[in-house]
Formats: sequence, C-alpha cells, structure tokens
Amino acid sequence: MTSSHIARCAQLAMALEVSATPKPGNIDRDHNYTDTRFEHFLASAVGVYPIMEKAASSGSGIGSLIREAVTESGKWQKGGNTHFGAFILLIPLVMAAGRYGDRTCLKTQVQKVVRGTTVDDAVDFYRAFSEAGVKVKPVDDMDLSDAASIEKIKAQGLTLYNMMEISSGYDMIAEEWTNGFQKTFECAGSIQDKIKEHGINDAVVLTFMEILSRNKDTFIQTKFDNKKAEEVSMRAKNILKNGGMEDIRNELHSFDEELLREGVNPGSTADLMISGLFVSLFEGMRF
Amino acid sequence: MTSSHIARCAQLAMALEVSATPKPGNIDRDHNYTDTRFEHFLASAVGVYPIMEKAASSGSGIGSLIREAVTESGKWQKGGNTHFGAFILLIPLVMAAGRYGDRTCLKTQVQKVVRGTTVDDAVDFYRAFSEAGVKVKPVDDMDLSDAASIEKIKAQGLTLYNMMEISSGYDMIAEEWTNGFQKTFECAGSIQDKIKEHGINDAVVLTFMEILSRNKDTFIQTKFDNKKAEEVSMRAKNILKNGGMEDIRNELHSFDEELLREGVNPGSTADLMISGLFVSLFEGMRF
Repeated sequence: MTSSHIARCAQLAMALEVSATPKPGNIDRDHNYTDTRFEHFLASAVGVYPIMEKAASSGSGIGSLIREAVTESGKWQKGGNTHFGAFILLIPLVMAAGRYGDRTCLKTQVQKVVRGTTVDDAVDFYRAFSEAGVKVKPVDDMDLSDAASIEKIKAQGLTLYNMMEISSGYDMIAEEWTNGFQKTFECAGSIQDKIKEHGINDAVVLTFMEILSRNKDTFIQTKFDNKKAEEVSMRAKNILKNGGMEDIRNELHSFDEELLREGVNPGSTADLMISGLFVSLFEGMRF
Repeated sequence: MTSSHIARCAQLAMALEVSATPKPGNIDRDHNYTDTRFEHFLASAVGVYPIMEKAASSGSGIGSLIREAVTESGKWQKGGNTHFGAFILLIPLVMAAGRYGDRTCLKTQVQKVVRGTTVDDAVDFYRAFSEAGVKVKPVDDMDLSDAASIEKIKAQGLTLYNMMEISSGYDMIAEEWTNGFQKTFECAGSIQDKIKEHGINDAVVLTFMEILSRNKDTFIQTKFDNKKAEEVSMRAKNILKNGGMEDIRNELHSFDEELLREGVNPGSTADLMISGLFVSLFEGMRF
C-alpha cells in the first residue's frame, strides 16, 4: 500500500468522524461551537495530508511529526486546536501502516513504533503541546506551560513512551500507547461489524456511544472532573440499553443538548474513533 | 505553490461544497439520496488526491486525468458518480494553477490549457463519460453510449476543446471551457466577498443561489427539460429577493423539500461552486 493511500485513509477517518451525527456534546455536521466549526475540522483533515504521507514513509520522528501536523492544521483553518489528540494516535498508526501490510502486523508494529521513541520525541511533543495550547493535566511534576520542564525531560532521559507511561493511568490516549492500541482495534472491529446493517454514519455513532459508555472520557475529566466523566459514561450506557436505533437516536438528541448546554464534550472518545476509523479504512473498509 | 498544496485546495473545495446547507435539491450534510450519501462525496474528494497532484504537475493529458479521477473516485466509495462534472472543471484549473502563481495568470493559463487539448483527450474523455454512466444530451450526431463515435471523433479530428465548443450553447460546464471560466471566477469573487459577513457555509449557499438564479442548470435541463430549469432559476431569484439570510434560509427549506420530492437536483451549479471554491482557496482564502 502506498504512502499516499495510507495518508488518504487518515484524512477520510478524520472527515468521517466529525461528520457522524448525532454525537453527544461534540462538533459534528449539525453542531458548531462559537469559534470552532465543522468546516474547521474538514480543513484540518485535508490540510495535514503531507505530514501523514511523510509519517507513512518514515521510520522515526513521532514527536516532530505530531508537531508538524499541529502546525499544518493551523495553516488551513482558524478554528484553533481540532485534532491534537487524534494526531497522537494517528501518527504512530500511520507510521506502522507504512511499513506493514496486514492487521496482525499493524498491531505488533505500532507497539514497536511507540516503544522506539526517544528523548527528542518527548521534547518535540512537549513543544507541540504548548504551541497548540491544549488543556492538560500536569504530567507528574512537569507543567506543560513551563519551559524549564524541557530541561527536566532531558535530565531524566524521558522518552515520549516514558511520558505516556506516566500519564497512562488517567489518560485514555496515553493508555493506547502503553496498551497496544487495544481500544483502537476494538473500535475498528465494532465499526466493521456494524457498517453493513447500519451504514457508515450510524456505525460510527453507535461505536462512539459504546466506547463512551465503557470509558471515562479524559477530555471531560480534565475540563471538569472524574465525577462528571463517570456520569456521562453512565448516561451513555443507559441510552444504549434502548435496543433500537430510532429510540437511541431520539434519546441522543436530548443527551446532546444537555452536554452542549454544559460545555461537556467527549473529545478523547472522538480521537479514539478517528484511530479506529483509520484502521478500518486501512483494512479496506468501503461503503 | 506546491502540487500538494493545490491538490488539497481541490479536495477541500469538494468537501466544502457538499457540506454547505441548505442547498436546494442537492446532497448536502443534511440530505442523502437513497443510494448516494454525503459520505460518498467526502470519500471521493479525499480519494482523488493523487490525480489532482498529478494534474498540478503535468502539462497535458486532461482527458486521461479526468478518466483517472473518475476511476479513483469509484475506488473510494460505492455511491456512484459524485464528481464527474466537477472534475471537468477542476482538472484544467488545477493544471493551470500548478504552473502559474496569481489570478491573472490563472485566468489566462486555464484558457491555454483547454485550447491545447488533443484528439486523444477527446477520446479519453468520451471513454470516461461512458464508464461513469453519466446522463448527457447526445453531442451533435454522437451518442456517448456508442463505441462507433470514437471512430467519428478520430475521423473528424475533434479535440476535447472542439467537443466543448459543440456543447457550449446548452451546457454550462462546456461553456466555462469556451468562455474563459467566467462563471468560475465570478463565483470565486462572490464567495470571497461574502465570507467575512456570512461565514463559509452561508457564503457558499448564497453564491450557489445567485448562480442558480442567473443560469439554467444543465443537469436539470438534461434530466427534465428547459422549462423546469427555467422555473427553478426563477424560483431561486424570487427567494433571493428576501434580503435577510434568515428569511432566505426559511424559504430555502421549503424550496429544498419541493425539489427533493420531484428529484430535481441542480448538479451543474454544484460543479461550478466547486471550481469557484477551488479558485478562492488557491488564492489564499481561509476561515
């Protein structure tokens, strides 16, 4: 598979994720926030093509590739941070996909890719984070807005993988790195199981709800607290108990309105959906 | 500007056009047809990247590039023909953009590009048409479903530009080729004028309505007749007389429902919007 094909799978994964509706609390084709809109996500997905193509043909440099993706995304739209979390998952997956053909290999190789990261990757990632202005929980004693922390990373010899290990207990994106991208592959399996019966939009919506019901969303935990994230997951679980899609859709609309009113958006769950969609498209899923 | 940048402008133009809503009669983010959906258009827009990049770096072969774009689009989605008309406009614009920097040059050079087409381009285009299964009015005495017509093209020494000349009296896409892409550049100007006040979605919707009000849509003429196309344009004109965007939006919703019920879709107007969006993005429009 060519680097171009893999890069387009990444673009389409981002476009399909943001399009799927209704997705409670998040931007989708029917929901904008004040300063960030649906079209900003499309422009970002399109804009990062060359970074994804580069990742598919390169064996190292995850930290700087994530940083380049953030920069390139910002050149194509003025809606702010759209895909930071998604890039953290996509870049290693795209790198692994560029070198290996089938799913078994992808699973094995993406682990090698993340375990092979360096201290330079950690420094680049750190810089990307502060450039993107993303809200995060301070990692250990390192404040991401603090330039002195770069010196600490170097002094302690922390690789990017080590940094993810530190965060993996409370961050679902970091946990993917240390846990073999388990939820990403589960997500891919779920989308592929559902697409024939439900079509692409509802396959994404249902899988999104399943992930949300089973995992406290990190973005909500960081923006609010653990309790709020638990409530949201419990609510998602109860909605899914309504077997039929029509009932689920109806309940989703009011759930969505509530979350939007409170400013609660399950952003990390959306990031996982993108990596799951990427794996599905890479494995040949079409609709 | 790199070929990659130009190719991404083409991708984003297609994604923004299909996203803009409400767009009377056509597929948009809130409307699907039975077999063709919003997501099919996104997948096609993403999928054709390499053909657009190739067009941006190549000086000839319009016919075969259009044919390759149709084939590649079909590999990424199962919704049938999504962008045939758009490719007829985009490919020469992308070729011209690849070689020349500013707008004056783009206008001049796209004319050189289309006038420079050959008999081979006509034959390739003809094959692309029949492969895509697009409904068209027979050109002169040539039936596009008739293989013998290829022999006639060759015997008469018709270039692709000559074929567009034959159709330009009744086909708004062909007329762009012979008229210096006049409506494309008007469309680009209109979008750029409106984006600051109205944002990207409404700038596209309003410009779409202006084009529709001033031109009988070729796709409607071919699928129905001249009278129906005239009615639709007159209706669009009357709706635009409601100065305010909110009033326009309300009227648009019922217009949209009527057209969908009758199966009337102004597809050629959408193709023109894509070429206008491409020119705007190429000229640096961001949002």
